[in-house]
Amino acid sequence: MEFPKITLVGVGLLGGSIGLAVKQRGLAECVAGLVRREESIAECTKVGVVDMATLDSAEAVGDATLVILCTQVGQMGELAEQLKPHLADGAIVTDVGSVKADVVATVESVLPRFVGSHPLAGSEKTGVANARADLLEDALCAVTPTERTDGAAVESVEKFWQSLGARTARLSPEAHDLVVARTSHLPHMLATALVRCVLGGAENGEADFCATGFRDSTRLADGAAPMWRDIAMANPKAIVAALDDLQEELDGLRTALEVEDAEALEQFFDEGRRLRSDWLKGRE
Amino acid sequence: MEFPKITLVGVGLLGGSIGLAVKQRGLAECVAGLVRREESIAECTKVGVVDMATLDSAEAVGDATLVILCTQVGQMGELAEQLKPHLADGAIVTDVGSVKADVVATVESVLPRFVGSHPLAGSEKTGVANARADLLEDALCAVTPTERTDGAAVESVEKFWQSLGARTARLSPEAHDLVVARTSHLPHMLATALVRCVLGGAENGEADFCATGFRDSTRLADGAAPMWRDIAMANPKAIVAALDDLQEELDGLRTALEVEDAEALEQFFDEGRRLRSDWLKGRE
Repeated sequence: MEFPKITLVGVGLLGGSIGLAVKQRGLAECVAGLVRREESIAECTKVGVVDMATLDSAEAVGDATLVILCTQVGQMGELAEQLKPHLADGAIVTDVGSVKADVVATVESVLPRFVGSHPLAGSEKTGVANARADLLEDALCAVTPTERTDGAAVESVEKFWQSLGARTARLSPEAHDLVVARTSHLPHMLATALVRCVLGGAENGEADFCATGFRDSTRLADGAAPMWRDIAMANPKAIVAALDDLQEELDGLRTALEVEDAEALEQFFDEGRRLRSDWLKGRE
Repeated sequence: MEFPKITLVGVGLLGGSIGLAVKQRGLAECVAGLVRREESIAECTKVGVVDMATLDSAEAVGDATLVILCTQVGQMGELAEQLKPHLADGAIVTDVGSVKADVVATVESVLPRFVGSHPLAGSEKTGVANARADLLEDALCAVTPTERTDGAAVESVEKFWQSLGARTARLSPEAHDLVVARTSHLPHMLATALVRCVLGGAENGEADFCATGFRDSTRLADGAAPMWRDIAMANPKAIVAALDDLQEELDGLRTALEVEDAEALEQFFDEGRRLRSDWLKGRE
């Protein structure tokens, strides 16, 4: 067994799903959870995502060989400082944060054997009660080493994610953040902007005219506000660059509408449909 | 029975679903379909959405008491001219077009007993093979009379949609177009713009990093390009106005990102989530 003890720091949807998968696949002798609230201990144990949960940092990570930070990206630095005195020599630490440059720079300056990770698995449903053992199956997991990162630790972390059924992609924290600004952060922000635009005034009966298309295309707007605030604060430049790219599309669309250019409009829709269809085929 | 014979002009997803529902609910003695291609006759009959299908306008609409235009919005004017000589006195004509001011003005100048309709039911799946008898159940159906529209015809058309399980909302064609520009056309165009922005360049491995959130929020981009070209061409001013409203949201978001205003960002996400959640509750 590669990891005698794995500790999840923060046991919500993602931490809980990792715990379930590790237990189901027998990848660790013990899965521990470090939680913040007394009531979370009973909740984690009840759902069966960890073997033991505690509020005590030393107890949680003391003899862990792999520690996975599953908290909000805004809390990672503070957490690293808090755990540092209790970590065993050689313990590998990774995380699941959606933003990497900021998190990796902060945490690796405190913890030498830290490897940044970002499993692209989630749901608008949060909390340990929604944890699923298969959440990471076939998911892509970015692993983002820097020049300072220990090579053996990177390989261990990659193997760990793969053992949960995920595919791994190794890239720099900065490259990661540029890509996810477009593929993940932009869709979330657009969904929110769309909801606010359509339902924010809503003096013309808009709410009644919104149908399933609106519901599905704005599903992402249901994400937790503090989490998305932290993501936005940790990756603002790349998100602004993504908004710039989107603006070009919107400006082209607006011009085509203003001059009523049927050909340009058909091309706009046709290319969009083709790009998405090719992408879906590539996923199969 | 209110309508001895109902004729569907164009038998795709929506026309086919109306045919199935009318037959299942026994709302007409005969459901006829006017189609454009020889092979559509066999297809319609096979799926069972009409009692008879024909390529012949006179045969299709000659003795119909209700004619429903289920073709693309760009074809309605031409179609009205084509059907006019064959319509029985007193026949009521309605349509299912997603845009109303343009369609109603064109068609009512040709056919006196025309009542514009727009059932908000659809799917990114098109074609008669995907027709479903319950497609209109609980759907909202806009009915858009003008000063010229016959009052009794409006009531008949409203009752017809209600008899299929839909709820009706009466409003002017212009009010309709302003509302759907925001609730329907804008989400479609944004989905397309997002796909083009994220996958159009895709030189950084974006395709691999797009996950289920991206898939769901861009589902609408799968709509047929010629259909959306026609919708855009029939409602350009209202869509540009909707894009203006969205731009305000995007500009506010951009500013909050540029100055890294955590509070404004949290409020942006929080209000979006609340507005959507309230809307979903209102639908239940």
